[in-house]
Amino acid sequence: MNNHTEVEILLVEDNPNDAELALRALKKNHLANHLFHVADGEEALDFLFARGAFSHRQIENGPKVVILDLKLPKVDGLEVLRAMKADPRTSIIPVVVLTSSKEEKDIVESYRLGVNSYIVKPVDFDKFIIAVRDLGMYWLLLNQPPTL
Amino acid sequence: MNNHTEVEILLVEDNPNDAELALRALKKNHLANHLFHVADGEEALDFLFARGAFSHRQIENGPKVVILDLKLPKVDGLEVLRAMKADPRTSIIPVVVLTSSKEEKDIVESYRLGVNSYIVKPVDFDKFIIAVRDLGMYWLLLNQPPTL
Repeated sequence: MNNHTEVEILLVEDNPNDAELALRALKKNHLANHLFHVADGEEALDFLFARGAFSHRQIENGPKVVILDLKLPKVDGLEVLRAMKADPRTSIIPVVVLTSSKEEKDIVESYRLGVNSYIVKPVDFDKFIIAVRDLGMYWLLLNQPPTL
Repeated sequence: MNNHTEVEILLVEDNPNDAELALRALKKNHLANHLFHVADGEEALDFLFARGAFSHRQIENGPKVVILDLKLPKVDGLEVLRAMKADPRTSIIPVVVLTSSKEEKDIVESYRLGVNSYIVKPVDFDKFIIAVRDLGMYWLLLNQPPTL
């Protein structure tokens, strides 16, 4: 996945095992061809706002969905969500939080900030794969994304 | 489904055929036990804001998801969405627009107003059933709803 203009899924995940599993789950269903993975919140924002290493991108060419972990280095997931939803150029991009946190405050704060969906990472390996597969199928095949 | 306090899906749909099909799709997967159906936007708002015929409800007992048609009698779907997302008591309830409209302006306006997901009703009978089933499974089984 080198052509950043065709990214359909932006995966923001610092845990390499979880990122690898997510990628495999999506590959099985041919949903990973247009996935781009970043490992911290700063890189996610650079990508989405076409800054820094991604200044060649067009903001308007946003992904169909952002899969966002909450506990992230540099800029945490809630801050990434807040920045995206506060800017009219990126606010309508669907964001799914995928996190191990079941904490009420993370759930409510995510919804208050405008998250589209919140999924708790299943601890069980197989259930994790199924959750990511279903998530990918829903947001890439069933949901109608906005044209930015 | 008489106990309004246990509604998990609020289906707002004026077309009786589409409502019946949606109910059947959800029943097959045991997702319809806690569905409540209203046929216009005014009744949807009364339900959600615990007014009129629904004044015995508690606003805090919101559904896990609202499935919302756009073209509705009395109060149209975009107005229902706008009212829900403008009020902190209902803004964090997930709303999925399920409509025959593929019009860019409906899609973009829905996302601008804060819709969680937008699904175009498949014209094909079987595909409609599958879409509603997948929608129900995603929002009732995979998504973590907010506690209001």
